[in-house]
Amino acid sequence: MSVYGGIEAGGSKWECAIGTGPDGLHATATIPTTTHEETIGRTVAFFEQEGPVDAIGIGCFGPIDRRLASPTWGHITTTPKPGGAHTDVGQEIRRRLSVPVAFDTDVNAAALGEHLWGAARGLDTFCYITVGTGIGGGGMARGRLLHGRVHPEFGHMRIPHDREVDPFPGVCPYHGDCWEGLASGGAIEARWGRPAIELGGSEAVWELQAHYIALGVVCVICVLSPERILLGGGVMSQPKLLPLVHREVHGLMNGYIETAPVGEGIAGYVTSPALGSRSGVLGAIALAGTA
Amino acid sequence: MSVYGGIEAGGSKWECAIGTGPDGLHATATIPTTTHEETIGRTVAFFEQEGPVDAIGIGCFGPIDRRLASPTWGHITTTPKPGGAHTDVGQEIRRRLSVPVAFDTDVNAAALGEHLWGAARGLDTFCYITVGTGIGGGGMARGRLLHGRVHPEFGHMRIPHDREVDPFPGVCPYHGDCWEGLASGGAIEARWGRPAIELGGSEAVWELQAHYIALGVVCVICVLSPERILLGGGVMSQPKLLPLVHREVHGLMNGYIETAPVGEGIAGYVTSPALGSRSGVLGAIALAGTA
Repeated sequence: MSVYGGIEAGGSKWECAIGTGPDGLHATATIPTTTHEETIGRTVAFFEQEGPVDAIGIGCFGPIDRRLASPTWGHITTTPKPGGAHTDVGQEIRRRLSVPVAFDTDVNAAALGEHLWGAARGLDTFCYITVGTGIGGGGMARGRLLHGRVHPEFGHMRIPHDREVDPFPGVCPYHGDCWEGLASGGAIEARWGRPAIELGGSEAVWELQAHYIALGVVCVICVLSPERILLGGGVMSQPKLLPLVHREVHGLMNGYIETAPVGEGIAGYVTSPALGSRSGVLGAIALAGTA
Repeated sequence: MSVYGGIEAGGSKWECAIGTGPDGLHATATIPTTTHEETIGRTVAFFEQEGPVDAIGIGCFGPIDRRLASPTWGHITTTPKPGGAHTDVGQEIRRRLSVPVAFDTDVNAAALGEHLWGAARGLDTFCYITVGTGIGGGGMARGRLLHGRVHPEFGHMRIPHDREVDPFPGVCPYHGDCWEGLASGGAIEARWGRPAIELGGSEAVWELQAHYIALGVVCVICVLSPERILLGGGVMSQPKLLPLVHREVHGLMNGYIETAPVGEGIAGYVTSPALGSRSGVLGAIALAGTA
């Protein structure tokens, strides 16, 4: 059986693992994202020390270039994350470790992991959305990971924003009050002056947050008609949030599209990833199998 | 070669055709949508008189039930269109004409037609959006028509709505100011008191209209990352509209996702269907080949 390496490359940390799946991880490491050279250097060192592996899958924050024929395949392109734009990840990992590399978004990797081993088993059209420092989304349509011109960038949809209720202008450097600009962990911290994890007691925070998350979820339902939507990421670890999102999605759909379980079945329809915070790195291992 | 029948079942008329494709139509008919019995009766009579056909494809306004195992396969479910909800189309056509029937949304049928014979040839991930009486969207992801839990319902996304600029509350009976509620032909007529076709001279009408259309297009770009977006439907026949939509999409994307042609390439990226108003009925003929 092949042994794969997985890298979930994020804006605050890189999760690395070696193994075959959720029940067969030989080694793991969490590497804080610092300078590009240092982060990639420590990642290479981990695989040199704990490997060898037959291939590596990288699930990377985006936007990324995953066109195999492109000279900038494996690069991060125009990210709002400071210092992250126009950097090579995939080519350098491939060169320095001399193994085949599969490169996709962090959220498509997570979706693949959930499809193989988690909450999307048996489904062929579904989404994985992460609400963390930023907001990203990926998934499958009819059994294939979502790729098109580029790849999905759910976080940059525009959603309704009532500035009388919430005068906060949003944090996205490209769009201001896009979905990520209003509803990411970064937006929560900027709006309320404290990170989400310290705001557990405030109803107003989570009511507004659930409303914004639901607005984006409704757009995804209308565009893709997924069979299930998995909501992961650090912000979703607040336990009161998901039930509020259910109520808001139900209210916003208002009975439209009867065959979607927007009534009592919604708790199984908009739900949590089964692999928890390991969706991304396990998905990267799954991705390695496609390299 | 098989001869197919195609039906584009709409809220104001049913377009029927018999043939093999754009260059081989033997007979066509336009039947105004009146009562369900009358409309379907005239449709059946057309095929009885002009047929026989080997199979029929139906592209129908939605939401529809297209799950083959469902007892209500072939039905329209919860449509905002008056008198259209909970009616059987596919089963009755199949029974009365004794031919295999393929049943999908009008917009997925149109997408299939454009994929075979029109502006989406050679693409495997693209969207077809109609802005007419209502707004609908369909398309393909990686070579397969978009189906999931149900089917896409682009028109019911929520988009930003600045009520100071546009106090109009929207016309969607389910959602008020969803995309269809703000930007459909029905919305234009209700907001301005005259149908779109009589408003050609007013810059304000088309500036606002382009802004709303672009907001929905941006959501579709962010969710699906299509290689091309085809904008059809009666409202798009206003010639000044598409260039304004290009400008708005370009502004809203603001340089994000570099590899999407949101700069000078946008005129080929967000463009018109090549089959014009025949996308739907030709697509229905294409759909018949899958029955």
